Order: sequence, then structure tokens, then C-alpha cells
Amino acid sequence: MSAEPVDESERPQGDPATPVTISYIAESAGVSIPTVSKVINGRSGVASDTRARVEALINQYGYRKSASPSRNRMMELVFDELTHMWGVQIIRGVEQVAREHRVGVVLTEFGPQRSAIRYWIDDALTRRPSCVVTVAQLSQEQRDQLRARGIPFVVFDPTAELPDDVPFVGATNWAGGRTATRHLIELGHRRIAMIGGPDRVLCCQARIDGYRSAMEAAGLPVHPNLMVRCDLTREDGFAAALTLLNRPERPTAIFASNDLQALGVYQAARALGLRIPTDLSVVGFDDLPITALVDPPLTTVHQPLTEMAAAATRLALALGSGERTPQIGLELATSLTIRESTAPPAK
Amino acid sequence: MSAEPVDESERPQGDPATPVTISYIAESAGVSIPTVSKVINGRSGVASDTRARVEALINQYGYRKSASPSRNRMMELVFDELTHMWGVQIIRGVEQVAREHRVGVVLTEFGPQRSAIRYWIDDALTRRPSCVVTVAQLSQEQRDQLRARGIPFVVFDPTAELPDDVPFVGATNWAGGRTATRHLIELGHRRIAMIGGPDRVLCCQARIDGYRSAMEAAGLPVHPNLMVRCDLTREDGFAAALTLLNRPERPTAIFASNDLQALGVYQAARALGLRIPTDLSVVGFDDLPITALVDPPLTTVHQPLTEMAAAATRLALALGSGERTPQIGLELATSLTIRESTAPPAK
Repeated sequence: MSAEPVDESERPQGDPATPVTISYIAESAGVSIPTVSKVINGRSGVASDTRARVEALINQYGYRKSASPSRNRMMELVFDELTHMWGVQIIRGVEQVAREHRVGVVLTEFGPQRSAIRYWIDDALTRRPSCVVTVAQLSQEQRDQLRARGIPFVVFDPTAELPDDVPFVGATNWAGGRTATRHLIELGHRRIAMIGGPDRVLCCQARIDGYRSAMEAAGLPVHPNLMVRCDLTREDGFAAALTLLNRPERPTAIFASNDLQALGVYQAARALGLRIPTDLSVVGFDDLPITALVDPPLTTVHQPLTEMAAAATRLALALGSGERTPQIGLELATSLTIRESTAPPAK
Repeated sequence: MSAEPVDESERPQGDPATPVTISYIAESAGVSIPTVSKVINGRSGVASDTRARVEALINQYGYRKSASPSRNRMMELVFDELTHMWGVQIIRGVEQVAREHRVGVVLTEFGPQRSAIRYWIDDALTRRPSCVVTVAQLSQEQRDQLRARGIPFVVFDPTAELPDDVPFVGATNWAGGRTATRHLIELGHRRIAMIGGPDRVLCCQARIDGYRSAMEAAGLPVHPNLMVRCDLTREDGFAAALTLLNRPERPTAIFASNDLQALGVYQAARALGLRIPTDLSVVGFDDLPITALVDPPLTTVHQPLTEMAAAATRLALALGSGERTPQIGLELATSLTIRESTAPPAK
């Protein structure tokens, strides 16, 4: 489960799965026990090279404080920037589980230029939370700092690849892309285009691969003319849809990588005088609350954000109370919400 | 500023605006200082009638702890239920000011049946926050409990009338209703209908009165046929709009009490084959993020939720650090966001 496997010969005696003691760390680092304690508790008065050496050992040996009743009944939830579209769905999942466990949730939005990240980790250490759920992208260094203080964290819907030992909760993006595409194929569509998301976003890769997989399974070649990639915004979706719809052999259906792009497709269809779903079928991804309110209501892949957030919180709290969890990474199933933006292609 | 004015003759000597000491409270209640301290700090071991007596005195005399550096740098933000539509706008305003002050925000959603409210106040007292911003409707008793512990709170956008001494931040709902209606009058509309919200919601009353005021100022009588009242949902807006649009002398414009109702008007217009804005102008209230995305984009009264939340947080933190604030209640200005759902009436 560890990205950098521990050399077992270097471990102290005893159960190899048991984290080492603070005195063992102190001895290995050649420092006093109070110094190790200072590092663990995020206090000052330790030279930076000493601090780095102690942190490295803590991370190597997996020292963690025993599940401590001294911990406040608090957890941290961090976002880079809260978005109107899915912020509330995530928060509600966390709050629901926090209520069950009667745990206070400290919410931090790092904000523009991620300004709050500079002090958040120090403040969080002072608050001694039992765990962290992070929607924000924490750096390797930040993850190491939390780990060195024995504060477990779970990454919500990681956008980039993570080491195997980082707990996360995501969604089945590949399966979702496959289901969306298969729905269009089953309606009789053959020229199915996709608006892909950016290269760097992992879930977008998975959605594209799901699309390709469904197309190939149906014996439909994915012609380069059928794919445009752009950012996950309505504006970019609009431009991408115009490009796709102005090509020869216009597609009869478009699968967009998220709902905002799909709303851009709606806009492009209107601009070109195409009716949805008569002239063009559209499928989105996410199932944001607004998709039921647009005209026509959008068929889209439901991403269970609230359930994902609840699962991430349960996992984080379990890790925080020292439980051994059978799984530290999981993807919750997406499902297709069929509304009125998809229909058989016009004859 | 106090709803129940203090009888000055009963006050101890000194500046009458200065809160009394803990020993004065103890003496007045006929209990020991540690007992008063227990009540203030929310600890157990005090008989309930004693606790009630001490709380009553504390509330009467306005005792508060000195701005305490011992307080955690934390504040509480509470919601009854987080809604997709405006939850994030409110939270972002709070987070923005919390970052400026480097204060941790503990977010609590009371949830279905307000289950968490039972323990929230105890847990919040344990966390010793410097202040509370409440979007939830706290009862008089809950407000008294906070006040007795010297924890100041600010009510975000109160939906019911509050005693004069309760700090709040709202929006200029009356002026917003007036502006929306005047916009329609200036476009040339005469038969302007309104979908009003429920009686019990204060802001809805203000919006209706703003509408009436603008109509009367323009010499336009508000015929009973021009008003339907219902809940603030899309479904109710749809039904109300059908009622209004099926009446003789159909209105050429509808002002809805919120954006969800306005989306119901869109739905009704489609059902009746009326084009917006050619056959019917529509104005909403709130300026939710989705209103820019619907077709046609909705003209609506902008409610500055993020700025209101920021102002509420600033006020709460100022009260929490013992500052005397010139104002404890304020309404931030609404403004009209003109998009494409309003036009002159058809000739």
C-alpha cells in the first residue's frame, strides 16, 4: 500500500504493521524525544534541517499518534475555490456524516491564488483535527506535513494521479463515459462526437477512454473529426460544438465531458438553428442541479457527489480514530440520468 | 438598542454602558462566582432553575466576557439546510473575511428536521468561538443561550421580525421590488402581475410592498387579478403563472418573488405558446448563477449574497472582539440585472 516500501530490515522488532514509537524516531534521528514531539505537534524551536530529518523518518516508518481522545472532535474540509455548481453537494455529504459522528467541520476555502494555503496547515495543526477531507489539490509536501503529524486525510475526486498510499474517493468516470456513449449508440446514433476535457485532468481522460471503449465495442471508428478537446466551461463547449457541427458529416449526437460544456452545446445548437433532441442529441456529465431546469432538461451522467463526500468523510474519520480500513481508495458508481436531450437520430 | 430596556436604577455604579462583572451577577443571583462561571462556560453541575436565574440576569445586565485572547480563533457558521442555489454564495462571503482575519470557520448544517441543533449549541460553546453567523433561524431561547455565554451572533437575512437588539444583515427587498416593477413600467407595461411569496416570509412582504409602491407611483391600480401568492418554488411559480396568464386581460409582464418562481413562469409561457420577452416579460429576484444560463437569460434583482455574508462576518467578528460597532443591523442594496427576458409589450 506504500509508494515507497519500507525496508523491513530497518524496522524495529515487533509486528511490522505496527507504527514505531516516538523514542525510536528520536533515536534514529539522533535527537531528543521532545524535539520529535515538537515536530509532530507543529511547534517552533526546531532547526529546519532537523525538522526535515524527523519528518522523513516519521513518513518512512509510519509513526502515528494513538487514536487520541485528546483530539478535538473536529475535522477539516478544504477547497481551492468553492464553485456554485458542486460546492453544496460536497459540503452536504460531509455535514451529513459529521452530524452522525457529532464532529465539527472547519471549512476552509484557499481562495484566489490559494492565499489561505500558506497558513492553513499551521492553523489546522493547532486545531488538532481528527482528519482532513481535501477537495483542494495538496502538494506532496503538504501531504507529508499532515502525515508527519499523524493527521489522516482523504482526497476527494483526485484530478491527478496520486501515490498508492494516498486515500481517496472518486467516481467511476470511465464507466460513466462508456454508459453515456452506449446510450447514444442504442438510440441509433453512429456519428457520435465527443467534447473532451483537458489532458491534465485525470477524470477527463477516463471519460474519453470510456467513450472510445463503447464506440469500439459497437464497431464504430472514432474519426479524429469526432473529437475536440477544451476546458470544462460553457464558453469552450460552445466553441467546440460550433467546430464539430460545422464539419462535413455533422455528428447527430455530442457527448460533452461535463454539464457546462453541454450547456455550451445547447447554445451552439440554437445559434445554428438545430433543435435538441430532434436534430442533435446531447449528453452531459455531472448531473448538476441546473440540468433538470434547462430546456430541454439534459440527459447526463450522474456523479454522486454527496455520497462521494459522505464516503470520503467516513473513511477519513475511520482513519482518524485509528481504525484499519479494508480500502483506502474507492470509486463510487456513476449512473445515467435520462431526460429529454437525447432521442433517435432524424432519418 | 435593547428590546427590554434595563432599569438604570438597578444597574451597578459606573458607566451604564459598561457590562457588569461576574461577581455582581453572582451576588444578584445569590450564588457563588464559580456557579456563574459554570453557566457562562456551558459546564454541567448547575441546577436548571439556578442556571435559568443566572442566564436571565446575564441577559438583563449584558455581562460579557472581555474580548478574550483565550478564545480560539474560530467562528461558527450555521445553516438549517444548505441549498444548491445560494449556499455557496453565502459561504464564499464568510470565507473571504475569515481569510482576511485568519479565523477558522466551523460550518454546521442542522439538516433534515434540524437534527444537529440539539447538540450544536453545546458543542459550539465547547469550541469557544469568537462569534456566530447564523443563516438558520435560531429561537429566542437559543439566542439567549449564546448571549449568556458572551458569544455574539449576527443573523443573515432574517426571514422573520427580530427584537431590535439582534444584529442582522439583510438586503433592501422593498427597494428591489420597486426597482423591478419600475423597470417594467418604464418599458411601457401597464398590466404587470406579481407572484408573491408566502405571508410568513418577511422579505416577500417587502418585495410585494415595493411592487405596490411602484405601481401606485405610476398611477397603475393593483387589481386583485394581478396578484397570486404561493411558495418560492419553480412548481408553484408554474401554477401561479398559469392562473395569471389564463385570466381575462392577460398581464404583459410578470414580476416573480424569486428566480425559481420565474423559471416556473418560463415553463408556463412555453406551455401556452407565449414567447419571452415578445409576448411576456419576466423579472425574477435573487440573481442566482443559473439565471444567466437559461434561455432567454433572466432579468432579475441582484441580491448581493456574498457581500451580505462578508458584512455579516465582519460585524460578528467585530462584536466578538469587543468592538463597539456603530450599527448592528444593516441592509445591503439590491440592484437590477437586466438581461433578455424583458422588452416593451407587443402593440
